[in-house]
Amino acid sequence: MNTHNHTRALGTEAATAPFKTLEIERRDVLPTDVQIEILYCGICHSDLHAVHNDWGGTTYPIVPGHEIVGKVSKVGESVTKFKVGDLAGVGCIVDSCSECSHCQDGEEQYCEKGWTVVFNAADKKHGGITYGGFSEKIVVNENYVVHIPETLDLPGAAPILCAGITVYSPLKHWQAGSGKNVGIIGIGGLGHMAIKIAKAMGAYVTVYTTSQSKADDAKRLGADNIVLSTDDEQMKNCPKQDIILDTVSAKHDINSFISLLKTDGSLVMVGLPAEQLEISAFNIVHGRKSFSGSNIGGIAETQEVLNFCAEHNITADIELINVNQVNEAFERLENNNVKYRFVVDMVGLKQ
Amino acid sequence: MNTHNHTRALGTEAATAPFKTLEIERRDVLPTDVQIEILYCGICHSDLHAVHNDWGGTTYPIVPGHEIVGKVSKVGESVTKFKVGDLAGVGCIVDSCSECSHCQDGEEQYCEKGWTVVFNAADKKHGGITYGGFSEKIVVNENYVVHIPETLDLPGAAPILCAGITVYSPLKHWQAGSGKNVGIIGIGGLGHMAIKIAKAMGAYVTVYTTSQSKADDAKRLGADNIVLSTDDEQMKNCPKQDIILDTVSAKHDINSFISLLKTDGSLVMVGLPAEQLEISAFNIVHGRKSFSGSNIGGIAETQEVLNFCAEHNITADIELINVNQVNEAFERLENNNVKYRFVVDMVGLKQ
Repeated sequence: MNTHNHTRALGTEAATAPFKTLEIERRDVLPTDVQIEILYCGICHSDLHAVHNDWGGTTYPIVPGHEIVGKVSKVGESVTKFKVGDLAGVGCIVDSCSECSHCQDGEEQYCEKGWTVVFNAADKKHGGITYGGFSEKIVVNENYVVHIPETLDLPGAAPILCAGITVYSPLKHWQAGSGKNVGIIGIGGLGHMAIKIAKAMGAYVTVYTTSQSKADDAKRLGADNIVLSTDDEQMKNCPKQDIILDTVSAKHDINSFISLLKTDGSLVMVGLPAEQLEISAFNIVHGRKSFSGSNIGGIAETQEVLNFCAEHNITADIELINVNQVNEAFERLENNNVKYRFVVDMVGLKQ
Repeated sequence: MNTHNHTRALGTEAATAPFKTLEIERRDVLPTDVQIEILYCGICHSDLHAVHNDWGGTTYPIVPGHEIVGKVSKVGESVTKFKVGDLAGVGCIVDSCSECSHCQDGEEQYCEKGWTVVFNAADKKHGGITYGGFSEKIVVNENYVVHIPETLDLPGAAPILCAGITVYSPLKHWQAGSGKNVGIIGIGGLGHMAIKIAKAMGAYVTVYTTSQSKADDAKRLGADNIVLSTDDEQMKNCPKQDIILDTVSAKHDINSFISLLKTDGSLVMVGLPAEQLEISAFNIVHGRKSFSGSNIGGIAETQEVLNFCAEHNITADIELINVNQVNEAFERLENNNVKYRFVVDMVGLKQ
């Protein structure tokens, strides 16, 4: 790994340590690379889990951040898709084999050899460990960089790179659209984007929530119908769903939602509860239902959701914070106390 | 309910009572009805559960049996599809609303108003409780009767009416065929038919079993590949599957099989374990996998699988028994001691 591209970053040195300013190294720009001056970076629950080593495998120091938007500051001599000054984004994926059938189909998230995560991953091509978007700049092969449409509010667009694509990809795959009933469980970073995107796709959107205050907000976000999932009568009387998108990352009762599906309906997990989920065979057999999962989306589809959001004027509802508020933000995120996404203004790192 | 059509039957009067000969009443043949002299009837695990009231809701006396083949002995004046002397079959479904979108699509098994089971169900149109195939004759609306191809061995064809259609329908729905890898869990009544049918569809068939003796038999049944699911090395090295059909009705580990699916693969339950099954969200999210269910099949598709079996010369591997062996057969079935389906010769009821 080339070590001449010093970069200021924000990271932690242990699972319980606070964030502090670090100096990391980026590789020098290779012929096919784009260097991006990072302007904004969202904070996702996965950042929290990785920083705290909840899933194991964290290498310290860790620099998280995978909802990255910024401005191209340098391009390699072979780069064709970007020029200096372009708005650009980087999400979860910064490399993949590019040869397997999934990569060829633009579904790098299912790369057979395993794709490289933007942070805390072994960089198979260039060595070392990847560092994420909590930094001044990042260097990425142009094939893993997307254009940010000029009309989008820039900090509000950052969460589209993970929260947006994570809900857009399954909504599209399971054919949400006009005439379809789509249910959404959980109104957080992913759920609030799912409401906006499913609604823009033309679906009739029902939101399931346990919280009356979130129910009121779901209407504002565009939901057609709100169901308090703790109210048996409301659950029984709500319209049957073609698709239910489950964004909840804590253990919860799946069967009561599978019961709300139409024949051939799918409950699609995009949340990642650590505990096993319990499913009744009777519940899926009667009605040929499916309990499915979906993982982010590919690079082409990430560009597609950005364009879709620009067309429908969709950005995330965010709280914009400074680099010195990151520790507090992680604490609040742990308590689900954010509506609905923190985005860090990274310009503060330069000062 | 008309009570002039006396019929000898075999039933039980309590969950723990043995089978005995009963006299039941069939309705007189209505204009759209077909009356069938029953020749053979298979015994399925569902019969066992219903007789023992394992799932609740059993009304005694109960006359089970839903894999029925026989000869048409009378037809109503409006019947167009059958004539006296035709070979005919009846499976699980003897009535449905015929108006909902699923009935219109020939998927009566997903009828929105609920279909009528051939036994132990309230007969919404004619009153009373339905009695199954453990009887001399049955009267069914012609729309719920299928033709048995003349070339099929008649007792061996009976299990196609439930075991056959239950595996054929999901194999077709999830597009098993040439170039596809199909895994089958469990080699019993359903599983052994699944091996034969998936193979005839052109798939590469892997059978997962915990039993070395069944492994040997799976080859004979046509499996391309056998994996002892208790052997971690074999599980790790077996080819990844497009579809895994799970025919097991006891609680078992689902995650280790979901791990064997390709991206976008489906594990489809046709077994009905009473206990909840545990699924890891990570396991389905990584690879956009599905855990799905499928319930028997519609009438048109039941005719289709019968024709398919005739074309490919497929019948069940059966043990043909007399009516006085039924109590013993139910005991052996409870211990999974049958290769692979009991079929009762019902002619004995007439003697």
